[in-house]
Amino acid sequence: MNPFATLPELHNHAPYYAVIFSSLRTSGADNDGHAAPDGYGDMAARMVELAAQQDGYLGIESTRGADGFGITVSYWRDEAAIVQWKANAEHLVAQQYGQERWYEHFELRIAKVERAYGKP
Amino acid sequence: MNPFATLPELHNHAPYYAVIFSSLRTSGADNDGHAAPDGYGDMAARMVELAAQQDGYLGIESTRGADGFGITVSYWRDEAAIVQWKANAEHLVAQQYGQERWYEHFELRIAKVERAYGKP
Repeated sequence: MNPFATLPELHNHAPYYAVIFSSLRTSGADNDGHAAPDGYGDMAARMVELAAQQDGYLGIESTRGADGFGITVSYWRDEAAIVQWKANAEHLVAQQYGQERWYEHFELRIAKVERAYGKP
Repeated sequence: MNPFATLPELHNHAPYYAVIFSSLRTSGADNDGHAAPDGYGDMAARMVELAAQQDGYLGIESTRGADGFGITVSYWRDEAAIVQWKANAEHLVAQQYGQERWYEHFELRIAKVERAYGKP
């Protein structure tokens, strides 16, 4: 699977938004996210699937190192779409588990993408 | 080392900027970035060190998975600091190597951070 998000051109469209989610998994967990005993892997995969179904979703990029530190950046059409996704019922359950079990710590930053370029 | 960037509070300060750099390492390389035969590990470490010395630098978060896909987010006071860092002579050499050798593909997005929160 292509790990890069395919996003609209900024030149021809309104700016879009990025949700930058940095997290450190609780220790003892399977940091690859596969069949982790605390259910993290299944829920993480489900959240990626569910996010993609939301209105205003543009794409997602995600990775986690062997040390358990990961970064997921999801891209959205506007702030309203981000607010709606945060309030999604199934996502609220995942957020609760994240707080309680899965993450030692996390930081979430919402940013407006103003410029973009890639390797030609 | 704490993998999280310690950033100024948005409530009391002007918004800051994020440079979201997603990249896929060329195959055959050591994706952990340690002693890679193509010099990537040393240069990546040097760039983190050098970035931290720049005016307007606020912090950095970075990770790469076993599949070679990585995300680095660096944080800056304003767009001028980002432009200056991009034009840094030593950084220009690293950018050249990145284009030619180290990255199969990359995407770079510059975004203004408007809201932020973390796990209490």
